[in-house]
Amino acid sequence: MNQKGKLKERISIITIGVKNLQNIRNFYEEKFGWIPVAANKDIIFFRLNGLLLSFYPSKDLASGAGKENNSSDFKHFTLAYNVDSKEEVDVLYNHLKKAEVSITKSPEETFFGAYIFYFEDIESNLWEIAYNPMIELDPSGNVVSHQDILHLEQS
Amino acid sequence: MNQKGKLKERISIITIGVKNLQNIRNFYEEKFGWIPVAANKDIIFFRLNGLLLSFYPSKDLASGAGKENNSSDFKHFTLAYNVDSKEEVDVLYNHLKKAEVSITKSPEETFFGAYIFYFEDIESNLWEIAYNPMIELDPSGNVVSHQDILHLEQS
Repeated sequence: MNQKGKLKERISIITIGVKNLQNIRNFYEEKFGWIPVAANKDIIFFRLNGLLLSFYPSKDLASGAGKENNSSDFKHFTLAYNVDSKEEVDVLYNHLKKAEVSITKSPEETFFGAYIFYFEDIESNLWEIAYNPMIELDPSGNVVSHQDILHLEQS
Repeated sequence: MNQKGKLKERISIITIGVKNLQNIRNFYEEKFGWIPVAANKDIIFFRLNGLLLSFYPSKDLASGAGKENNSSDFKHFTLAYNVDSKEEVDVLYNHLKKAEVSITKSPEETFFGAYIFYFEDIESNLWEIAYNPMIELDPSGNVVSHQDILHLEQS
């Protein structure tokens, strides 16, 4: 296997699709005592040990990943693997495509400057490969921080 | 909030419930090039950045967590928060119970010497709180290793 196209054994984000983001935020703040590292009305991020735990509306998670929200093969969570450049996203995209992995959404730029594609394993577990300049990674690939996103709320 | 009962912002394991464990193992080994840190015919663990990614049969994940495998409120994944002793499991259990969080399985010893309970958030996302002597944590709570489990296969 080409080392350049290989996925290291790490993840950057677990994103859980939810119905009511504000209620979920209240739950984790009140019952766990956790404080989001970044949040707005569209998404919440908690910074854990080297990765982020994110909550995001299921319908938006599904459409972003190229899936149907209410279909039986949408599992309401994704694992993200972040890299340092758009070029690395393309390298992994070409590698996985060549390996005949099921791509559910081809690489696309997002409104906040990220560059992302989605694929799934053979049991519909979704992975996101992303360059996201709002998320700082250390040299080992651990997530260090997420920039403030209050100004990024979508209307 | 009592500091002793507080959950730190970290996780130890993401467990994904699957239908065919061997096929999933083949997929991650072949397409990702990942090597399990521990595996037997019942479960697989990959060691990621400070946490484990585990695949486990959905039916066993559901029954272990006190849920029905085919019910609409079983989401086929759990997040685990491991601690250093059974006493810490009990402290967190009492804390979460007092906070009126929905416990789906009370603390129980497992056949391999762990001590675990499960609860869920308000949208049925499952959490496992565990003391598991097979999983080594560093002082920050990152997972360092998982002991060999080949001898632990269940018949």
